[in-house]
Parts: sequence; structure tokens; C-alpha cells
Amino acid sequence: MTSKLRIIPLGGLGEIGKNMTVIEYEEHMIIIDAGIMFPENDMLGIDLIIPDYNYILDKKEQVRAFLITHGHEDHVGALAHVMRDVDAPIYGTKLTIGLIRSKIKDRGLGGVVNLNTIKAGDVFQVGPFKVEPFHVTHSIPDGVGYGITSPVGLIVHSGDYKFDHTPVDGWPPDFAKLAEFSNRGVLCLLADSTNAERPGWTPSESVITSALNDLFREAKGRIIVATFASLISRIQQVVNTAARFDRKLAITGRSMVVNSRIARDLGYLKIPDEMLVDINQVKKIPPEKVVILATGSQGEPTAAIGRLAHGRHAKLSIQEGDTVVLSAHPIPGNEEMIYRIINRLLQRGAEVLHEDIANVHVSGHASREEMKLLINLVKPRFFIPVHGELRHLKAHGKLASEMGVPKDNIAIVENGTILELDQYSLSVGPRLPGGYIFVDGSGVGDIGPAVMRDRERLADSGFFVAVIILDKDRRIIGKPKFISRGFVYLDESGDLLLGAQEAIGAVISAKDKGRDNLTKQLENALSRYFYAETGRRPMVHVVVR
Amino acid sequence: MTSKLRIIPLGGLGEIGKNMTVIEYEEHMIIIDAGIMFPENDMLGIDLIIPDYNYILDKKEQVRAFLITHGHEDHVGALAHVMRDVDAPIYGTKLTIGLIRSKIKDRGLGGVVNLNTIKAGDVFQVGPFKVEPFHVTHSIPDGVGYGITSPVGLIVHSGDYKFDHTPVDGWPPDFAKLAEFSNRGVLCLLADSTNAERPGWTPSESVITSALNDLFREAKGRIIVATFASLISRIQQVVNTAARFDRKLAITGRSMVVNSRIARDLGYLKIPDEMLVDINQVKKIPPEKVVILATGSQGEPTAAIGRLAHGRHAKLSIQEGDTVVLSAHPIPGNEEMIYRIINRLLQRGAEVLHEDIANVHVSGHASREEMKLLINLVKPRFFIPVHGELRHLKAHGKLASEMGVPKDNIAIVENGTILELDQYSLSVGPRLPGGYIFVDGSGVGDIGPAVMRDRERLADSGFFVAVIILDKDRRIIGKPKFISRGFVYLDESGDLLLGAQEAIGAVISAKDKGRDNLTKQLENALSRYFYAETGRRPMVHVVVR
Repeated sequence: MTSKLRIIPLGGLGEIGKNMTVIEYEEHMIIIDAGIMFPENDMLGIDLIIPDYNYILDKKEQVRAFLITHGHEDHVGALAHVMRDVDAPIYGTKLTIGLIRSKIKDRGLGGVVNLNTIKAGDVFQVGPFKVEPFHVTHSIPDGVGYGITSPVGLIVHSGDYKFDHTPVDGWPPDFAKLAEFSNRGVLCLLADSTNAERPGWTPSESVITSALNDLFREAKGRIIVATFASLISRIQQVVNTAARFDRKLAITGRSMVVNSRIARDLGYLKIPDEMLVDINQVKKIPPEKVVILATGSQGEPTAAIGRLAHGRHAKLSIQEGDTVVLSAHPIPGNEEMIYRIINRLLQRGAEVLHEDIANVHVSGHASREEMKLLINLVKPRFFIPVHGELRHLKAHGKLASEMGVPKDNIAIVENGTILELDQYSLSVGPRLPGGYIFVDGSGVGDIGPAVMRDRERLADSGFFVAVIILDKDRRIIGKPKFISRGFVYLDESGDLLLGAQEAIGAVISAKDKGRDNLTKQLENALSRYFYAETGRRPMVHVVVR
Repeated sequence: MTSKLRIIPLGGLGEIGKNMTVIEYEEHMIIIDAGIMFPENDMLGIDLIIPDYNYILDKKEQVRAFLITHGHEDHVGALAHVMRDVDAPIYGTKLTIGLIRSKIKDRGLGGVVNLNTIKAGDVFQVGPFKVEPFHVTHSIPDGVGYGITSPVGLIVHSGDYKFDHTPVDGWPPDFAKLAEFSNRGVLCLLADSTNAERPGWTPSESVITSALNDLFREAKGRIIVATFASLISRIQQVVNTAARFDRKLAITGRSMVVNSRIARDLGYLKIPDEMLVDINQVKKIPPEKVVILATGSQGEPTAAIGRLAHGRHAKLSIQEGDTVVLSAHPIPGNEEMIYRIINRLLQRGAEVLHEDIANVHVSGHASREEMKLLINLVKPRFFIPVHGELRHLKAHGKLASEMGVPKDNIAIVENGTILELDQYSLSVGPRLPGGYIFVDGSGVGDIGPAVMRDRERLADSGFFVAVIILDKDRRIIGKPKFISRGFVYLDESGDLLLGAQEAIGAVISAKDKGRDNLTKQLENALSRYFYAETGRRPMVHVVVR
């Protein structure tokens, strides 16, 4: 009897099977990607999230390799954390490894980690797995999917992909390899579901060219293009258009500067030396002769565009005649911040072009017709939609089923679910406990639901602390000392504080109550009083000494 | 020399000229609408926002009338606040007044307020203004715009509108009146800019019918439709479809129950008695024989759909086979909550249809081709785009200018700006101070930027309070008492607290420091210590007694 292959997407709710996926056979484990998630708006104070990888830690001697699909944060960002605990080689293409190396160096793990550069088309063995990276097109160059021949059969993982016939780097997806996999017989396909609700075919990255040409032709002043720092092909298009229109290029925003340097050093981004100018030089160039690449396309107030919008950029300020281009799609949850920044830029006199009103962005992910092509190319027996929220996975699963994949051969699961696969069946096992690990400041995993709930409550109504000193006869010495933030403006709340003092006095002087629960009684009395007076429920604490 | 007419949109940043607009001539003021704004995600703890109406308060004897365009919260929701301070008649159509009456009663202003029911087509005089409400189509019935003949000329205000030729209530917009205004000569048009970035023509509300028919035909189990409680015409369509497919109707969610009762009582919503069932009866009806109307289309966790998604609805729970329809467009900022609720509903086994994947919603606002028609019908000399963020106003202004309205005759301003108009010119005056008034609990306007900043900081890192009792020789009596929430989990932070104790001890025992700034020194020492240990910056307060 042969063993089964286990496939486990790690992480919490949100996007499933995106950040970190375990593939395990007997004593051998490989891990596809190790990325971070971005906190949602109500995850207060959290900087970033990494998938709960306790499952890996428990078997860390069995980890044979990390196979990385591409260099985006949500696929590589957790390596700097995970590699402190796990010693296994990392495999990725040249650009991917270049980006990982830079991040790992930042975290002081420079010499320790075993980084291996591979090429699409390579074949290598990792434990019992034959691994075959194949080229895919996405919004960063040098992306791959993986064919993994395991003892139970061939697994194909799409990575993040779209089928772009005219990619900016001229390297189309490897349809032949997919067809070859299909000829060999694919047991299971794991495929990107991001755009499973979007009909049709995602436009090629090249369609941006004509929008950029139009706007460069019409812009009378400076052009400022904000996009993701990792969107190297978009950056290349801006460079190419700047060359056509004879504009110099300056770059602002740390991640944009770092990423474009790495991509340029490794040959993935071509910028003529004479075109690049320092951001400090921009003021000396006529406005119609310069384009500025900037971070902040998601409306982040501290990124370059955010600082420009709020007049807080050290080197630049928005002027009448500037054209700002937001060349990105809002990540759900960021819409409000993005629109706010658009309004602020308009207020300062800029023209603003964004996805809603100009063709300045295309997605890096396949739409429904591409998904159909992938399934028909690969012809998998079993299908696991990954990379998406549950709604995307359901839509992708439905699409596969409409194309003839039997419903029982499709597994739509949430992160942490153990899937078991052999030649004949795909079964859904139990779900691992845990979900994600919050990173806040330098703390990793020390913030849990209790602290988050406290932050929610503090965000809503603030806190109120009263310090009371009693003498031996239980009389208050002096006045109570009050500390409060986020509740009311204390300087203008004299009456409220007098009332609080009276409420405290009433509890203290009630003779029939023991000292034991005096603190609790005082806290309850103050809470009731504040709610009656203000309709708010601050966190109330009383210290009796 | 004649006086000028003043037009002042009140409010803060966000949507401009939507919630409350002053029109003033000499000693006479009329106010168009008095609505609330909804807080943005980072306005922590704020329940709602009303425009700063100090300008009105300063001249409250001069207020001749409130002219209300329609019954939506962002046009009537502030009346319950404003009417405490201002005594002037309110004019609105029957449904609008019905909705206002209900809200004002809730706030205990029942008998006090002077409510006047008008009809589209009426003509009445208010001070020096001749007022002519005209019928418009929008996502609530009985909406009007206003023609206002002032001493300087005829002003036309569109209200919220779309040009729906086949509205659900069979009452199309009054094109004839707009043409008549145009014949008389329109000095200035104020028009809804909400969809100024959207090309084409907004589909008729009636197109929803076919989507509803399809889904009622296919649904095997219960159908649960979530929409805005004020979207009476959408509710009517669900009722009509339920009748066609022989399903009973139940309603859940307070505002949905109240609004549909009012609209039904006033004849704007037609539901046969025998179709309505109580929400408690739903369990006794076969699933394929019932449709449920619910609140919560914006993902609000405490509304009916939110409670269903989280398994916290008292009367119902989602079951396999349910079809949930989110018949609404996300208000920017709500996307994340909405998608979360969709995922939760799917998790519980429901099918979920929403705008991205089915034609279950259309906008209530005009798109660009309708805007062009309005401008060509009305032929105004001056144009003021209103109802929208700055980006929408700019787009609307550009559209008007492309249609031949001279640029100098178009005023794009922010809320609080005083516009002055006579027969020959439209000039932009100074901007009033203020912006909006936060409502938090029962407090109106007592929360300002300082409290908001505190809440942000508390949300990010929580607080830490240390209470220290010193004896006469400046030695600590007992142990310091620590209170902290939202920072770290105290029960698991023994080492951190020991370190804090040491940091306090070090400051106290330093001999060369005076008592005066001891508190400040202790707070600084603790802040530094916490940042070094955790990378976080909680609010730190020390009480020394």
C-alpha cells in the first residue's frame, strides 16, 4: 500500500493557499512560497501577518526545500521569519532570489540561508519529488509555476499567472510545457483563483503602452507615476515611454528605489544611465522633461504619493500642471485611502489619472477564459483552486466543474485544511488549529485576540483611570487622580469629572460594602455614570491604595 | 445696485454640496437638505457626522425654509439635530415627510417641527424665492429637484437623480419642466456629480427584474435579499418577483421593517397582506416558498446579514441551499467588510450573488450621458457641480466645459466655500472655518482632533499606566501597580513588567533629579524601555503619590 500525498495550505481566513503551501509525502516536505498577508483595516496596530507555520516547525527536519514562484511580498515576505527556525534550501529564479537575498540581508540572515538560483525549464530532484519550474507571465518578471512529480503522480502548481501573449519582457508563458505535463498525465492542478469572478481574458501588460503614450503626449508638466514597487514590467513601460518622449526619470520611495536597483542589476529592468536623475535634481529640470516613479499607489499616507498629497514630501511638492498617474488596482480595504489621496492631489492642482478613468492598469492574474485554457491544457484529474478568498475559490471550482471536472474531484477548502491525495482520490482531512501570526513592532505572535479586542474598544471610546488613596478609616485622601485619553477632552469636561468624583464618593461612603470588591464596584459605578452622561463606554480602571 | 445671491455648501471634506446647502439673499435663507455623513474607517468610534451649521445658527432668524429633495439619510438625517436649534418649516414630498416624521419622533421632536407636504409640480413662495419642486427618478420614490426663482435669477438644483425612462413606480422624470425652466432662462444649475467618472447611461431600475426572475427561477431554497432599507423601488421589485414565483415575504432588520412600513402606509410600496409573514414564521414555510428582505448590504456586522453571516441572528440561520443576494454597491471603505461577509456566508453553505457576478444592482445616479442631457436641457449660464468627492466634481466640471459652458462660469469648490452669484458673474469667496461635527454616543461636537489622535494611538499600541506610592524619603512603598490594555497581554509578560519595575527603580534612585519632573522622567523611561523591548509605543502615564 502506497502512502498518500498531503497538501496543506497554511494561513488564516482571507486568501487561501496563497502565502505558504505544504506538500508532504511520508517523511519529506516541500513548501511552496512563504509570504506575508497584509492586515485588514480592523486588525488594529498590526504591521503584517505571517501564516501560522507550527505544522512545519513540528517536522522541521523533514523540510527538503522551499520552492518560490515569484518575488512578491505575499510569496516571499515570510522567509525572513521562517528561516530563523527552519534550515532548508530555497529555490527560485534569478530575480526572485535577488529580491529574497535583499530582504534576508535586511533581517541579518545574510550568510546563513541556502539560496539556489534555478531557471524555468530546469529539472531537479528534492527528496522523492522531481521538480520542474515552468515559465509563467505575471506582473513581475521571472515568475514560475511548478510541476512536481511525486510518488503518487504529477502535481502542477500555477503560481500567480496570466496568459500574456505579448509580455513587456517578450517572454510568453510556456504553453508547451503545460501540454507536455498533460501528455504525461496530471494528477492534480493547483491554480490561481484571484480573478475567478472576472469574465473574459485579462488584457496584456502591453495595452498600457497606448495609455502611457497618450498621457505623455498630452501632459504639459511633470508626470508622476505611482505603482507597486514590485511591478517591474510597469516600471519598464514607464521607462520606455519616457525614452520616447525624451523625459528624464527620477525615483522616490524606498521600496521602489531598492527593487528597481535589484531588477536593474540583474538585467530585468533596462534604464539607460543618462536617463536616471536623482530626486534632488528634479527641481532643476523643466517640468515637461521629467517623469517621477513613486510608491504609494494604495493610498498609504506615509509612502511617496501619500506624502506628496499631504504636502509632507521632503524633496518635492505637487504643483499646478503635474499629472499624477495611479497605475494600480485598489486592494480591497484601501479604496477609501486611495480616493482621499486623489482628492488631496486634485486640491493641490494636479491632474490625476487612475484606473476608473483611464487604462493605466491591468491585472497580473488570469481571468475566466484563461482559467479555462489552463484547465484544458493541463487536463488534471483533481483540481484545487487556490490564491483567492473563498468566494474566488468557489467561482473557480464552479468553472472547473462546468468544464467537466467531476465535482468530487474538486476540493475547495480553507487554509489549514489537510488534503490527502493518491492516484484515485482526493480527500479533505481535518483542519489544523491556529491560523495566522500577527507581527506588531518587534513582537511576532505575542498579540492575540484579547489584545485586539482591547484595541478595538480603546479605538471606539478610549480609557479612564482613577487613582484613589484611602486612609485607614476608608476616607479619600486628597482628590482622586484621573487619567483619560480617547474618551472626552478632559480640559473641557469639568462637569463630567465632578460627577465622576461624586459617583466615587457615593460608593466609598456606602457603609454596607466590603473592601474586597470595592475596586470592581467603583469601576461599575463610573462605567454606568459615563454611559448615562455620554452614551460611551470607555475602559474604566480604578486603583485604590 | 442689487444684492448678490450666496450659495454655500456646508460640511467637511468628502462629498461636497450633498448634505446641506445654504441659499441666501439679503436677510433670507433657504436650506436644501440636512443630511448626515457616515464616518470613514479611521474616524475611530464616531457614530455619524453632521455638517458644521454654525453659519446657519448665527443667522437662525433668517432661515425661511428647509427644502428636502428626498428621504435618504444623507439628505434628511441631520434634521433631528438641526431642528433643536432652528425653527423653520420643512418642505418635502409625502414619502420624504413620512420618513422625516418617523425620525424626528424617535428623537422626541414630534410635535415641535413644522412639516409641510408638497408635490412635484407645486409652486410656492418662501421669502423672496419662488420654489418649484420637479419630479426626478432616483433609488427612492418621490424624489424632487428644485427650481428656485430668486431675485437674481432662476436656480435649478437637480437633487439626486438619474434619467430612468422605465422606473418601477411608472413615474418618469419631468423633462417638460426642465425644458420649461430652460425657456425661462436658467441662471445657475447645481447638479449631482456622483457618477461623473462613469461613461454611458445608468441602466433603468427595471433591468433588475430579469436578474431577479432568473435567480428566483433557479433558487431551490430560501432567497435572502439584502439591500438599503431606503431602496423602496428595489424592495418593490423583490415583492413583485416573489408574487410571480409564489413566495411569501418576511422582513428582518429594524430600518427595513420601519421604512417598508412607512412606504407601505403612504402607498409607495405595495405588498399584498397575505404575502407578508412574520420573521418568526419563516421556519414553518418550505424553503422554496419564502423570500427574506434584510438589512446589511454594506457588510455591517450588526445588521441582519452580518448577524446571519456570523451565526448570531436570533431568528434565522443560514442553511445549505440558501441564496443570498447583495443588491447594493459597496460604499468606498466598506469593500473589505462586504467581502468578509460574502466569504462567511459561503462558508455556511449559502450561494451568494452580488454585483460583481450578477446584475443585481444598478446605481440611482446619472452617468455621463445623462449629465450631458441635463446640461443641454437646462442650458444654464453658470454651473456648480455638487454631490460628489472633489474628483467627481472635477470630472463633472470638465464635462460641462467640453459641452460649451465657459470655464469661468463653472465653480468647483469645497464645502464651506461661499459662492456669490448675480446675473453676470459667479465668484468664489472665502471659506468658512469648521467642517463637520462628530456625533459619538450622545455627544454632539464634543470630540475633536485631539481625542481622535488619542484613539488612533490607542488603537495602534494601547496604553500603560503605572501607579507609584512614595514615602517621605522618596522610596517606593510596595510594588508599583500596573494597568495596561491593548499593548501586550499582561498575564504573559512577566519579564517585561519586571523590566518596567527596574526602569522605574532606576529613575527613582537617581539622586540628582528633582521631584518636579519625576512623573515626566518616569514616563519617558518607560516609553523608551517599551520601545526597545517591543518596537511599540503605547501611551504611558505615571501617577506618583
